[in-house]
Amino acid sequence: MDAQPTSLIEASRVQGTNVFNAAGEKLGAVHDLMIDKRTGQSIYAVVSFGGFLGLGEDYFPIPWAKLKYDAALSGYVTDITPNVLEGAPAYAAGAEPRWGDRAYEEELHRFYGAAPYWANPIVL
Amino acid sequence: MDAQPTSLIEASRVQGTNVFNAAGEKLGAVHDLMIDKRTGQSIYAVVSFGGFLGLGEDYFPIPWAKLKYDAALSGYVTDITPNVLEGAPAYAAGAEPRWGDRAYEEELHRFYGAAPYWANPIVL
Repeated sequence: MDAQPTSLIEASRVQGTNVFNAAGEKLGAVHDLMIDKRTGQSIYAVVSFGGFLGLGEDYFPIPWAKLKYDAALSGYVTDITPNVLEGAPAYAAGAEPRWGDRAYEEELHRFYGAAPYWANPIVL
Repeated sequence: MDAQPTSLIEASRVQGTNVFNAAGEKLGAVHDLMIDKRTGQSIYAVVSFGGFLGLGEDYFPIPWAKLKYDAALSGYVTDITPNVLEGAPAYAAGAEPRWGDRAYEEELHRFYGAAPYWANPIVL
């Protein structure tokens, strides 16, 4: 991973960054990031697939490991398929999940086959 | 480092988080975070010390390693002293630094004695 200084973005401006599938087709956009206040690591990108698949304006918290930044696209690429998204955990605006609930987050990581960040801490 | 799920915060809500000195006295507040789009890691907290030391509303990019989250204070504690802050790199609103300029970021890290994140990449 090549962490160049040019890859920096303000937290306040990350909203709206596009999310693409492996074919480079736009799926949705970043609504927000969930950041671990202690480590500073982004844990989830909360993605809106508005309109796509009739998913409306629901927000999908997606583990960071499922997204890869593509400088040419100026956005994130994910290998998550429409089939997977249809059954994915999501919430409506104003109905934020229980971020402090370990069971909820365990389910979220299990769904995407991602290693929980608290079991595999970021090495700084 | 104990990364509990409860330590998550929305990127859009991190603005205004207080910054304290080692004695627990408020120095300023987070204006924004600079996040590495590729790794998702917060690289700088951009801190405003408005009024403090007559520093006005300037923004100070502070390497993440210089801040430690304190759950009891619901904010960040830093050991940066007023003397150091007086000479620290800062910018005014509307005069964002050249984030793509390696020399600028090297100077920033050197000033605070922090290891450059591109020389010591985050292990994910």
